[in-house]
Amino acid sequence: MSEKMKVAVMTALNELEMQERDVPTPQADEVLVKVDYVGICGSDLHYLEHGRIGNFIVEYPFVLGHEVGGTVVALGDEVKHLQVNDRVALEPQITCGECEFCKSGKYNLCSDVVFFATPPVDGVFQEYVAHKANLCFKLPENVSTMEGALMEPLSVGLHAVFQGGATIGQTAVVTGTGCIGLTSMLALKAMGVSTVIVVDLVDQRLEKAKELGADYTINGKNEDTVRRIFEITGGKGFDIGIETAGSEITTRQLIESAKKGANLVLVGYSPTGEETLPIGMALDKELTFKTVFRYRNSYPTAINAVSSGDINVKDIVTHTYDFEDIKTALSDAINKKDEVVKAVVRIGRE
Amino acid sequence: MSEKMKVAVMTALNELEMQERDVPTPQADEVLVKVDYVGICGSDLHYLEHGRIGNFIVEYPFVLGHEVGGTVVALGDEVKHLQVNDRVALEPQITCGECEFCKSGKYNLCSDVVFFATPPVDGVFQEYVAHKANLCFKLPENVSTMEGALMEPLSVGLHAVFQGGATIGQTAVVTGTGCIGLTSMLALKAMGVSTVIVVDLVDQRLEKAKELGADYTINGKNEDTVRRIFEITGGKGFDIGIETAGSEITTRQLIESAKKGANLVLVGYSPTGEETLPIGMALDKELTFKTVFRYRNSYPTAINAVSSGDINVKDIVTHTYDFEDIKTALSDAINKKDEVVKAVVRIGRE
Amino acid sequence: MSEKMKVAVMTALNELEMQERDVPTPQADEVLVKVDYVGICGSDLHYLEHGRIGNFIVEYPFVLGHEVGGTVVALGDEVKHLQVNDRVALEPQITCGECEFCKSGKYNLCSDVVFFATPPVDGVFQEYVAHKANLCFKLPENVSTMEGALMEPLSVGLHAVFQGGATIGQTAVVTGTGCIGLTSMLALKAMGVSTVIVVDLVDQRLEKAKELGADYTINGKNEDTVRRIFEITGGKGFDIGIETAGSEITTRQLIESAKKGANLVLVGYSPTGEETLPIGMALDKELTFKTVFRYRNSYPTAINAVSSGDINVKDIVTHTYDFEDIKTALSDAINKKDEVVKAVVRIGRE
Amino acid sequence: MSEKMKVAVMTALNELEMQERDVPTPQADEVLVKVDYVGICGSDLHYLEHGRIGNFIVEYPFVLGHEVGGTVVALGDEVKHLQVNDRVALEPQITCGECEFCKSGKYNLCSDVVFFATPPVDGVFQEYVAHKANLCFKLPENVSTMEGALMEPLSVGLHAVFQGGATIGQTAVVTGTGCIGLTSMLALKAMGVSTVIVVDLVDQRLEKAKELGADYTINGKNEDTVRRIFEITGGKGFDIGIETAGSEITTRQLIESAKKGANLVLVGYSPTGEETLPIGMALDKELTFKTVFRYRNSYPTAINAVSSGDINVKDIVTHTYDFEDIKTALSDAINKKDEVVKAVVRIGRE
Repeated sequence: MSEKMKVAVMTALNELEMQERDVPTPQADEVLVKVDYVGICGSDLHYLEHGRIGNFIVEYPFVLGHEVGGTVVALGDEVKHLQVNDRVALEPQITCGECEFCKSGKYNLCSDVVFFATPPVDGVFQEYVAHKANLCFKLPENVSTMEGALMEPLSVGLHAVFQGGATIGQTAVVTGTGCIGLTSMLALKAMGVSTVIVVDLVDQRLEKAKELGADYTINGKNEDTVRRIFEITGGKGFDIGIETAGSEITTRQLIESAKKGANLVLVGYSPTGEETLPIGMALDKELTFKTVFRYRNSYPTAINAVSSGDINVKDIVTHTYDFEDIKTALSDAINKKDEVVKAVVRIGRE
Repeated sequence: MSEKMKVAVMTALNELEMQERDVPTPQADEVLVKVDYVGICGSDLHYLEHGRIGNFIVEYPFVLGHEVGGTVVALGDEVKHLQVNDRVALEPQITCGECEFCKSGKYNLCSDVVFFATPPVDGVFQEYVAHKANLCFKLPENVSTMEGALMEPLSVGLHAVFQGGATIGQTAVVTGTGCIGLTSMLALKAMGVSTVIVVDLVDQRLEKAKELGADYTINGKNEDTVRRIFEITGGKGFDIGIETAGSEITTRQLIESAKKGANLVLVGYSPTGEETLPIGMALDKELTFKTVFRYRNSYPTAINAVSSGDINVKDIVTHTYDFEDIKTALSDAINKKDEVVKAVVRIGRE
Repeated sequence: MSEKMKVAVMTALNELEMQERDVPTPQADEVLVKVDYVGICGSDLHYLEHGRIGNFIVEYPFVLGHEVGGTVVALGDEVKHLQVNDRVALEPQITCGECEFCKSGKYNLCSDVVFFATPPVDGVFQEYVAHKANLCFKLPENVSTMEGALMEPLSVGLHAVFQGGATIGQTAVVTGTGCIGLTSMLALKAMGVSTVIVVDLVDQRLEKAKELGADYTINGKNEDTVRRIFEITGGKGFDIGIETAGSEITTRQLIESAKKGANLVLVGYSPTGEETLPIGMALDKELTFKTVFRYRNSYPTAINAVSSGDINVKDIVTHTYDFEDIKTALSDAINKKDEVVKAVVRIGRE
Repeated sequence: MSEKMKVAVMTALNELEMQERDVPTPQADEVLVKVDYVGICGSDLHYLEHGRIGNFIVEYPFVLGHEVGGTVVALGDEVKHLQVNDRVALEPQITCGECEFCKSGKYNLCSDVVFFATPPVDGVFQEYVAHKANLCFKLPENVSTMEGALMEPLSVGLHAVFQGGATIGQTAVVTGTGCIGLTSMLALKAMGVSTVIVVDLVDQRLEKAKELGADYTINGKNEDTVRRIFEITGGKGFDIGIETAGSEITTRQLIESAKKGANLVLVGYSPTGEETLPIGMALDKELTFKTVFRYRNSYPTAINAVSSGDINVKDIVTHTYDFEDIKTALSDAINKKDEVVKAVVRIGRE
């Protein structure tokens, strides 16, 4: 196939350029996917603005975007479980399958992982992508490819609540109302967690959380978060806390307002990576801290939960842009943070 | 207190007599509860008709009934966490608190358990009962004492799905549509299990299951259960199976239609206690069999799940009787099995 | 490489013939291994005598043998973690790495598994074998390739005790003293299980169990197994039971002598695959039944445990044969069952 | 019983006085125990020197000591499972048995706990103590009451390794060689952990660790701890880390040298309770942090493990003192820290 496709290429800090590249040819174990929707993630914005996250440093040209839903248009020779026209969600992590982590089911810890839009691996703000067939998950009829793109952030939320051992009847607190905070909240409610309290500093975002199902919201600017959590929980504290704000302050609040024996899940990265925490109090309460690095085995769960109606993921999207408006999409996401809860880019049409 | 109360006393096989007894006086760690509602359980019917279950043999006079919701009317001296007029659900198992099972959280296995309506311990088809305060769980405002009575069978259903490790996105099969089958199904749906298939032989009961939220129903009389489960699951089989029918046939069907690595939960007792099963097939699939004996630590979860609206337990009730009609209540439950899915007896008024 | 090697080929029921074949050439992700030792497993004997196990039917010519230790003699182009002259244990199951079971760490349930000496896949009673490098586990200096061959049955024993959740301080019962019964017992003792009781019908084998570390042995022919287990455990019953005898009788004995809440692990296949069991009693005790199909992720553990001295696996071997005597080896294993606890064939020299 | 007994009473900071008190009379559910041995714990020393630990403030007179082994000399009326002359280990935490923590098996988190030698509850540096019979664990014949006294610190070590999910074949690091560091190390080795690396700053104590079974020791003063751990583990890092030193430095070292997916168990309290840690790195590795508050359900395990010979706990004792020398015992423990690894006081004779 020597056809051409459009690709949004990052050519320098804060510079994006629409270029033409060859449509890729799928290998034997790959499918060619026409990209329908790509979600914009905080990491995309961070690379665009800063050119790096930790030790991952962008070298130009670079392509952003790793939350993808699309439609299969061609099959590699060995592919059996997919058909042309199948609509799919793409899990963006390719792992070795052979190391101790892959073998034991924790493939997200594979050292040889290749992850979309993580330097030096290109992402998918482009019209077509060839991808491992076994990482392309077929969507049921009642799930759109826009929802398919959202399976990625939903997978993080699901992994977080699985790590925390969430279950029916519990009380949970989520700090942070970014996309991961919201998908975590959706996952908690879908699993029957009775009371989910969401904490943030922006009223607009807290209203979105409430609209999506949060039982209580706390604006940490205006309220004493710890006292309010104890009020809501009748003085008991919460069973499970999900920290997505990436702040030492919220982590500390969770330690302080946790019930004894509670599980805390750390998802957000603080700016320096260092946090000063009341570990002695954590010991007194015998807390458990789980952490989250991406996700594993979550796509089938995410798709089932959206298809069954248990999780309404599409309502987290506040803004949709056409591919030609991708620069606007990214700059809005950066400059109108309070308003743009989640943006997706419509690359092709379903 | 030398006041009198009415008690429905079993005086012989199939014989029930309304008698007067003294209203009990609560001990220091007890509360006196005015009984509002008592559910009728299959074990009540079995004792009434057969006078025994396994090694538990009724000696007359005996009082049936162990699913209780009521209102606190007096407090023992040491009781602090309850008030007069609190509406409560009564967990009917009093355990020693000191054996290895109690200490390790598996108090349902305590050898010294005292359980309502299990010979020689009387049940609560009566107007008042004195009960350990720590086994009386306060109901939130939006939960009725009729729902309080249903926390008992709901606790069994919750324990079953906890034993099975149910979680969001899975596919489950429940065999049997007795009260426990239905509460298991409600629990599965509330935990985000995407697809719940219910199997029984009675259409009327399957319709009830559907009405309560089952995604699919199979009438084993008319359909090949195993084949149908594979059809529904796209040939994969189910992740978690809950056997409440107490039948070798349904247990075998679950083994045959399970996905490799699946969990089966055995809840129902077959008539002889013996079952001939394809264990070799279970090994080939590396299945896990969990079993259920009553429940533990489930009341708070049950109450939270009903209060939050995640579980609508009251709709399993198809028949309500006044206390004076308790004989009719029990005979209906025995003679109109297909129709009477769940009956409760209104002892007092909330 | 057009060199020739000797292969012991099964040409008909009970017929074995030494033939010459080409030494295989390793693929890019394989290594060529000079085979030093191959253990004889019950399944080898069963295929030799009966030509099938369940649905796996031998087509001639066929090669038996799947417990292998050897020495790397050549490397495929992509192999990095091994060197020529590395001594290795070969995990004999090649799985797809892409299905839901592989992805979630339960690769032993992969439907596309290729397993040595399981029809139609040939085994390794031969001088050389080319095998996936990532399934060749390097042995530390203090572990011999004879021990390397024994990592396979030890992996089954380890998987069984992991499935059963064995831990320090417990009391365990192992029924059956075949190789898997003995490796299970070794694993239990190495994990700090305080009391391990081994049950069999053959005194000679029970003596071997005692010699290898069993705390108590019971000969089921001469003693009432259930009563004796209760005697040894002070009336409490055991915490974890490992059934390797493949008998309904021993499974029933385990159910009867289990402590409430105990875990039973079913490893052995009964001749018909069907077993009639007291399931009602299992429910009364709230027992858990785990089953075992081969093993997963056990080789590194097995090698570490042998290298550290925690498990002395080599002492289970009672008979060693040279490759030219393989017919004797197999016929001894069939005809002198009580005596031949475990036999290995020395193919080459370390 | 109006007999008198000797009690070592703390009357002021660093002041201990031998007084006479009445021998206590056991309640119906208690036994009277003649105290044979009491171990000296760091908390005893801390109360003696500083008069407080966190919010627990000593009011004089106060009795120290909570690690107790002794002999039953009288029984309360309801006591059935013990006899006079039984030798016992005393679990020093009395809990309510009724709260959500007690009910769910996490009784160490009970808010109403009464714990020996934790203000305002007296300890047991005295000749007799009356204690709940169900907290007095009978010792087998081959276990001494001196070992009985050591069941308490061994219970902490066992709880730590259980929290960490230790199992056979793993590699572990223990930071700190106090009594809890050493009992953790003993527990790890007894569970089949292949490689245990112990880190401290005092050679004398590291030699003790080596003598007790540590595979490697690292003196953090002389060596780069993180680099050395990577060397020993072939660059992989460890599977389970137990932090008992109560230092931010060692906690950081554990985070840095952990394998991805590893479990860290925090046992030691840092002086301020606050720690600054590289949480970002913990997220990158998806580490789990468990914490430890005392222990639960560990005594039976500890006793079985000592009786079976899997754990040799008595060899951690470096110094034994007679009761009349208790002042010397405590001052030695304070002033000769490097030398006095573990001291016990012989109160009576077995």
